[in-house]
Amino acid sequence: MRNHIGNVRYRTENNKHFLADVEKTAPPHQAAKACQTCTVSSSRVLRIGLLGFGTVGSGVYRMLADNRESIEKKVGFAVEVVKIGVRDGSKPRELPSDLFTTDLGSIVDDPTIDVIIEVIGGTDPAGALVERAIQNQKNVVTANKELMAKEGSRLVHMAKARRLDLHYEAAVGGGIPLVQPLKHQLAGNAVLKMMGILNGTTNYILTEMQDKGADFGDVLASAQALGYAEADPTNDVDGFDTMYKISILASIAFGKQVPLESIHREGIRAVTRTDMHYSDLLGYRIKLLGIVDAVAPDRIRARVHPTLLPKAHPLANVHGVYNALWLNGDFVGDLMFSGRGAGSDPTASAVIGDLIDVGRNLAAGGPGSALPYDIGAKTESIDTLQTRNYLRLIVQDRPRVLGTIALEFGEHGVSLAEMEMKTLPEGRGEMVFLTHPATESDFRAALTAVENMPNVERVANSFRVES
Amino acid sequence: MRNHIGNVRYRTENNKHFLADVEKTAPPHQAAKACQTCTVSSSRVLRIGLLGFGTVGSGVYRMLADNRESIEKKVGFAVEVVKIGVRDGSKPRELPSDLFTTDLGSIVDDPTIDVIIEVIGGTDPAGALVERAIQNQKNVVTANKELMAKEGSRLVHMAKARRLDLHYEAAVGGGIPLVQPLKHQLAGNAVLKMMGILNGTTNYILTEMQDKGADFGDVLASAQALGYAEADPTNDVDGFDTMYKISILASIAFGKQVPLESIHREGIRAVTRTDMHYSDLLGYRIKLLGIVDAVAPDRIRARVHPTLLPKAHPLANVHGVYNALWLNGDFVGDLMFSGRGAGSDPTASAVIGDLIDVGRNLAAGGPGSALPYDIGAKTESIDTLQTRNYLRLIVQDRPRVLGTIALEFGEHGVSLAEMEMKTLPEGRGEMVFLTHPATESDFRAALTAVENMPNVERVANSFRVES
Repeated sequence: MRNHIGNVRYRTENNKHFLADVEKTAPPHQAAKACQTCTVSSSRVLRIGLLGFGTVGSGVYRMLADNRESIEKKVGFAVEVVKIGVRDGSKPRELPSDLFTTDLGSIVDDPTIDVIIEVIGGTDPAGALVERAIQNQKNVVTANKELMAKEGSRLVHMAKARRLDLHYEAAVGGGIPLVQPLKHQLAGNAVLKMMGILNGTTNYILTEMQDKGADFGDVLASAQALGYAEADPTNDVDGFDTMYKISILASIAFGKQVPLESIHREGIRAVTRTDMHYSDLLGYRIKLLGIVDAVAPDRIRARVHPTLLPKAHPLANVHGVYNALWLNGDFVGDLMFSGRGAGSDPTASAVIGDLIDVGRNLAAGGPGSALPYDIGAKTESIDTLQTRNYLRLIVQDRPRVLGTIALEFGEHGVSLAEMEMKTLPEGRGEMVFLTHPATESDFRAALTAVENMPNVERVANSFRVES
Repeated sequence: MRNHIGNVRYRTENNKHFLADVEKTAPPHQAAKACQTCTVSSSRVLRIGLLGFGTVGSGVYRMLADNRESIEKKVGFAVEVVKIGVRDGSKPRELPSDLFTTDLGSIVDDPTIDVIIEVIGGTDPAGALVERAIQNQKNVVTANKELMAKEGSRLVHMAKARRLDLHYEAAVGGGIPLVQPLKHQLAGNAVLKMMGILNGTTNYILTEMQDKGADFGDVLASAQALGYAEADPTNDVDGFDTMYKISILASIAFGKQVPLESIHREGIRAVTRTDMHYSDLLGYRIKLLGIVDAVAPDRIRARVHPTLLPKAHPLANVHGVYNALWLNGDFVGDLMFSGRGAGSDPTASAVIGDLIDVGRNLAAGGPGSALPYDIGAKTESIDTLQTRNYLRLIVQDRPRVLGTIALEFGEHGVSLAEMEMKTLPEGRGEMVFLTHPATESDFRAALTAVENMPNVERVANSFRVES
């Protein structure tokens, strides 16, 4: 019998006094020292299979190395990455080459491995690997937002049924503790509303556009050059990443997996420096937010879109690559968490936090703490949303234009609250309005009607407003 | 055999399939319905003894009542407060009088009770009661910062040895998740620095002084009238409460209990509206902070004092009764958590979050998750602190005064960075300096020397500056 933690755990289930003896005979630090170079367990070691060695995977490995002594003290056992699964085995790397394999299946099938850390991302092959790891009775720590957003309920149920841990703190908000606090410290609350800046790339782009008065395309190009944005930026700038993350948070907060197709999603490509300028004049900042509202005790509305926030709102002051979640609960009131939402080190921090919990649980012979939620959250369409709106129109600069536009909005039950106006070249004008709260469907109908008015050239942009 | 969860737990240890059966035969909501009025367990119920029924205790009771269905679903069992311990049994209360007892010992000795929630505060009698509860094999949730700051290591060790939970999220930061995220999600980090606004009363007073240009005494009096400050405000305004809280956070982050006598503590009584005014001119806000620095891998410095923070610092924008913790870890980078740090509802939120974890753990037959830390953190005196300082002097308004003062500071190795000056009536003047970083001992020596200069009437005030 190999003496890795999986077995220790098995034995503690049969003898609750065993663990006390283990702790007496093998102080974790000594065990760690004895095992710094071993790749096959010869002592009590938490054996890790690491799937993926990109930005996050290498950060995880480095954090384990840098903070080994303190991590092992907390886990109560030595901790060892015994195998790393990569796509390209021929890439030159600083670590011994026999640590790496391109056969990722062999890692999740390895009976000596206690924990799988999955930091590949995407659903294929990550999904099948995570599932196989759970079937093979392995605990899993993952940073995979897409996988958890799509398959979270099923995977957590699988893990729970096998008394395993499945943790995914790193999937949302990088190093900011969000997932576990929602599951635990805030669990007694009815969450009424959450709004999050959950994607560092888009927040960086919007911040740069704001600070430099620059256009989206230029900032995106320089973000790509700096490595802050992917060559194909769709996942970030079109709001998919934010959608996955708000879906995960909503699924935990409301106890049912939120279908992605129910989430209204708009990215930031349409945001211009002109809109930034007018928003600023009106006292607002534009942020890409994931928002979820409890519209009834058993029904939510989730959405992702560029949003005007008053400058005094705490989320309006989260800049650059920082992420933040603002939350309102019935007892806790307003809360905000902010920090680095992406990157090698902060994401590693969340992965290692989860890993330590897996290790502690194995060391204590606990039953795992996967907290399942079912599928099928009841959701509400965005059509019934009541919200204020920002809109910008390009019009023919003629008498009576403003009056007829205002009347047209009134016809559709949309009342105007504030406006800015500017003369453009060639006999045109720019009008910017903030509306009073109106239902989404009324506002859309009004927009269509206004866009068809003879003196209105086009609706240049419209964004929802939160306060 | 009484069929409360303590027994269920015992049975799950012997038969890991029992729980699945329990879940099948007794859906939590049904069990809840069946048991809403019972005070002696007739079904599977998490039986709670509540010690204290003041602001926090009544909030806990109300939250359990208001959110019962969702809480019981998360715990997996019905949840019932079966006894409430109070000091004054004759006080008229809305709940049935047989729910209350003044014999608090009888609650912690009651063999049918699974969990004690201690919200009395202070060390006597709370300390002895918590200890007796643990000895009686009961899980404990406490909001008691003073007790945890003084006896935390011993009590958590006791709980751990008995495989019990001892949770204290509510002891620091009210409803803001701080204690558990430090223990879990951030556990892989070497924490380098923490700064917290941890006392709502003093933050309210300082915010009011700032906003209204009012004096400490007047704001304190109105805070007392509004119930935001106690009749005896010492615990808050002299920094004891903040000291307990930063001590708890530091003990968790650095793994050793921080001796209270090692924490330098100054309250806010000395802060005047004049200092608020000059700080504002210089671009700062004055906040009462609990601060802990890692000065070496195994050594920390903890302190509580009014501190000047640049207006752009996120903590400088935490106003009124809100609390916040700013943290820097080696991998996670900068983080901030903010929210309501006190009051009935937010504190109840933290208590109930802990209670749900206790219940889940009992339901799963887990070993408890008390995470002990030893006593004896190595600490560094404030004398070696390197920091910038604000100071305000009242001087005789004569030629050469500024020059001689500046030279005297220079003599002691203290270099001046910024200054403001103002003429006062009767031939006097006011000088305000910001220094470059200097060691505490050099700065104190300089202050004494300056105070003894013939043209210096007095050192009106000095505060440390963080950035």
